[in-house]
Amino acid sequence: MVKTIKGIAASDGIATAEAYLLVQPDLSFTKKSVSDADAEVSRLKDAISTSDDELTKIRDIAKESLGEEEAQVFDAHKMILADPEFTGAVEQEVTDKKVNAEQALQDVSSNFIAIFEGMTDNPYMQERAADVRDVTKRVMAHLLGVSLPNPALIDHDVVIVAHDLTPSDTAQLNSFVKGFVTDIGGRTAHSAIMARSLELPAVVGTDTITTDVKEGQKVIVDGLNGAAIIDPSEDDIKHYNELAKNFADEKAEWEKLKNEPSVTADGKHFDIAANIGTPDDLQGVIDNGAEGVGLYRTEFLYMQSESLPTEEDQFKAYKKVLEGMKGKSVVVRTMDIGGDKHLPYLPLPEEMNPFLGYRAIRISLDRQEIFRTQLRALLRASAFGNLRIMFPMIGTLQEFRDAKKIFEEEKSKLVKDGVKVSDDIQLGMMMEVPAAAVLADQFAKEVDFFSIGTNDLIQYTMAADRGNEHVSYLYQPYNPSILRLIKHVIESAHKEGKWAGMCGEAAGDNTMLPLLLSMGLDEYSMSATSVLRVRSLMKKLSTKDFATLADRAVNESITNEDNKKLVEEYLNK
Amino acid sequence: MVKTIKGIAASDGIATAEAYLLVQPDLSFTKKSVSDADAEVSRLKDAISTSDDELTKIRDIAKESLGEEEAQVFDAHKMILADPEFTGAVEQEVTDKKVNAEQALQDVSSNFIAIFEGMTDNPYMQERAADVRDVTKRVMAHLLGVSLPNPALIDHDVVIVAHDLTPSDTAQLNSFVKGFVTDIGGRTAHSAIMARSLELPAVVGTDTITTDVKEGQKVIVDGLNGAAIIDPSEDDIKHYNELAKNFADEKAEWEKLKNEPSVTADGKHFDIAANIGTPDDLQGVIDNGAEGVGLYRTEFLYMQSESLPTEEDQFKAYKKVLEGMKGKSVVVRTMDIGGDKHLPYLPLPEEMNPFLGYRAIRISLDRQEIFRTQLRALLRASAFGNLRIMFPMIGTLQEFRDAKKIFEEEKSKLVKDGVKVSDDIQLGMMMEVPAAAVLADQFAKEVDFFSIGTNDLIQYTMAADRGNEHVSYLYQPYNPSILRLIKHVIESAHKEGKWAGMCGEAAGDNTMLPLLLSMGLDEYSMSATSVLRVRSLMKKLSTKDFATLADRAVNESITNEDNKKLVEEYLNK
Repeated sequence: MVKTIKGIAASDGIATAEAYLLVQPDLSFTKKSVSDADAEVSRLKDAISTSDDELTKIRDIAKESLGEEEAQVFDAHKMILADPEFTGAVEQEVTDKKVNAEQALQDVSSNFIAIFEGMTDNPYMQERAADVRDVTKRVMAHLLGVSLPNPALIDHDVVIVAHDLTPSDTAQLNSFVKGFVTDIGGRTAHSAIMARSLELPAVVGTDTITTDVKEGQKVIVDGLNGAAIIDPSEDDIKHYNELAKNFADEKAEWEKLKNEPSVTADGKHFDIAANIGTPDDLQGVIDNGAEGVGLYRTEFLYMQSESLPTEEDQFKAYKKVLEGMKGKSVVVRTMDIGGDKHLPYLPLPEEMNPFLGYRAIRISLDRQEIFRTQLRALLRASAFGNLRIMFPMIGTLQEFRDAKKIFEEEKSKLVKDGVKVSDDIQLGMMMEVPAAAVLADQFAKEVDFFSIGTNDLIQYTMAADRGNEHVSYLYQPYNPSILRLIKHVIESAHKEGKWAGMCGEAAGDNTMLPLLLSMGLDEYSMSATSVLRVRSLMKKLSTKDFATLADRAVNESITNEDNKKLVEEYLNK
Repeated sequence: MVKTIKGIAASDGIATAEAYLLVQPDLSFTKKSVSDADAEVSRLKDAISTSDDELTKIRDIAKESLGEEEAQVFDAHKMILADPEFTGAVEQEVTDKKVNAEQALQDVSSNFIAIFEGMTDNPYMQERAADVRDVTKRVMAHLLGVSLPNPALIDHDVVIVAHDLTPSDTAQLNSFVKGFVTDIGGRTAHSAIMARSLELPAVVGTDTITTDVKEGQKVIVDGLNGAAIIDPSEDDIKHYNELAKNFADEKAEWEKLKNEPSVTADGKHFDIAANIGTPDDLQGVIDNGAEGVGLYRTEFLYMQSESLPTEEDQFKAYKKVLEGMKGKSVVVRTMDIGGDKHLPYLPLPEEMNPFLGYRAIRISLDRQEIFRTQLRALLRASAFGNLRIMFPMIGTLQEFRDAKKIFEEEKSKLVKDGVKVSDDIQLGMMMEVPAAAVLADQFAKEVDFFSIGTNDLIQYTMAADRGNEHVSYLYQPYNPSILRLIKHVIESAHKEGKWAGMCGEAAGDNTMLPLLLSMGLDEYSMSATSVLRVRSLMKKLSTKDFATLADRAVNESITNEDNKKLVEEYLNK
């Protein structure tokens, strides 16, 4: 029986394959007394040995697909299984207390985790707690006879079906994964962003897909319209094959725009740039013909490191990106840690509302040694390309002034030491705190440019966590209040002869584009994989047709829905 | 040696008394084997018996000062100590495992807490977990020979010194407490609000007071200027006695304004109203001559109940307030649960950022049965006074329309059933979500009034949790961005012939008052204890002197500090 499940189109494309349920099994158990402790120990040993075999397989596959470094985590897991201090203690517990292996495993493991987590002066050992947790889960699953999903072991084409996909889930996906469908999330969820960056069709926010589909059932993921078709008929398959072909043709058309500039039908030029996280992303930027890097998220440098990255390490990364872009502009955002991004080696305070807490520039201005190191690395790299720097989460002009002062101090020191430093580094800021957007006219007098971060700007302006499914209806990019702030930011920049860009997900959104063109936004920065689609769409639109759109969107419209309709109306004129 | 510690003036007045340190002692211990289990059990029994004596004393005092109901919690604690299932199990653990009493107590107590908390279908039993935790702490303190602060036992005049004061701490304060000083917090912290409502001088945010002062040292709390003077000299005491006398004189002057209207020096009338949480607060409103209730926080009705309050219970409470105000207007805010306010019987989702989550009107529109019950109770009560209703956390016009529609539906049903219902209930909204403030001109066409909630409006606009000490520098009520939004809200209301009030802490702030008068804010709602001070200040100010203030504050000023200076400048003209 064909079933069609509606969701949110999160990443373009069509895929058809068997469903693979990436769902955590129920690992609950009851404590039991055992009379035959030897038999119980032997059951435990079997589970350990099966787990070890499995880890060997996963490690080999991971090594091949992801490289030696990524595979080492599984070696760490194998070492725990081989450690008599751990597994021996579990056996001992079974024998001494005559309890079932599940209970013994949990007791010993809790103890180890508590000890590791207690080593607050040794972040390396603290992280081992996560390894113990993972290994315990694996052995527990085998003891209980349930299967733990092992996405790394997938060896045939599948569509991943999950409640949600975490960063560590997506890190394990291999090339057999053709698309995915999740219960929760929206277009800006981590899973959706990953899907677009991997160019995998994806549908999110279906609510029920994990209960709708059974392992191995055939599923079509329609990432263009936001639907999953379970057990499709021959006709469905035919229909979707056609859609897939059309989409492929469209993509081929886009490919032809790779080396063209981004211009509207009436010949107006705008910049389409790409967002990157590491120098490795540069190839995608070049392959997709982006006109610059509109957002380099430097926090990945910090997150992928075991300790604070040195000035030299940072310098190398920044230089690589600047050189790779061959004179095209690169906007580097200084460290945006805090909120949902943490560094194991930099303990941050426990906060009740981390998104409203100690993060980004607030940390940089407080922990100046970290900030100064980053600025020195950037200044040194500036000699190798066209560098622009922006500060995240600026809420008051005092913060911007403080950050700029520190930048000038480090610059003077380097110049005095004879280090070559570019003399025309633009200093800008993210526009994501409502207070700054409201006061954009004052900020525009002191900054070189704005880059609107729509994800955070919307979340704060609507007072709704973008990751919280209970308030996801309030993520309204076209709400007139949001568009008023965006328009005010762009106009304020222009009034002072400055430029304004956008680097949130909205910059690559089809409905948003006519609105932003109407407001005269200068730079559109997005996932590299969206660049050609947007360039193609831009080519079809004439700014003249949208002259009155922005004014009507902010003055006549009352709701998000009003503006969706208004854009439609203009597009169909 | 005299020491002066600076902090934030949180509640007016001067108090001098001995310091009482309300600081949690260190209850950590190490697990030990004991050879003489009997001796250990006897040590345990001593600690239990001392704890029991202490609880008897506390209960008697609590009964006298707070009443029978409040005292019952200590009976519950005594019952746990008398329960052989609990204390017997601890003794057993000492005897069986030959561990020290501290370890045995912790193990048994953890078990009990886990069992109670696991009873998810029985909220009453779940709450018992907190009792077990409290009792365990008390016995543990006696085992370790450290003293647990017992504020209920205070029997001479003291100044409370604490890191912070929680709601349960303040509930235990008796009339010997003359003031308090804390390490953390700002003017809007719970401790500060409590201090003003109890009319106790208070200084918060000193950072270090708990280490600066020793138990029993003499301390002057200067709640007028935000300072604590430790070990004051004779001269200091004389100086502060004078200050205290002047303050008392000033208060006596204010008292004379009790039955006067709130008018400026040039004869303009504005409404000064009071905020209340329960019908019990009404006496304070009347004693201080407030011109209405500007905010009735109905969530206390829900928080003080063991289950959802019935329509009848709510009706009685609303009727009591409306009748008590004798025709003066009463603005009732519908349930504002979520964020930091939880109901034991209404499980809410675990959220990463509860302030950006499922709360207030978002819950009401989702759990309509709760909302409809409240609206019916309000509608029925409307026949007994001058009722106005407002919805909290409105972010989009759709939400307001949905809430209004439900209101109209319930009204029609009641009218059809022949229930008497007022025909001129104004329907308004809190202005606290930035999106709504930005779009105030559109909202003003559909609502009857706005009430600006500055605490939340500032927290969302600045993207800074007002309870988070790491970003407290961003709580900037005079930031031009905040003032622009406030001005826009007031002007939008007036343009449509509606009125605008303010019910956040800022409404009673001396620096804010000239700004708000300049903007023409209609209603100022604050703690009842602030009403006469503000009325007195208003009487001294002429709106003519401040005609240009608001425009300059939002167009010329750039920072929060700029505006503090600007107001000073106008006041000293």
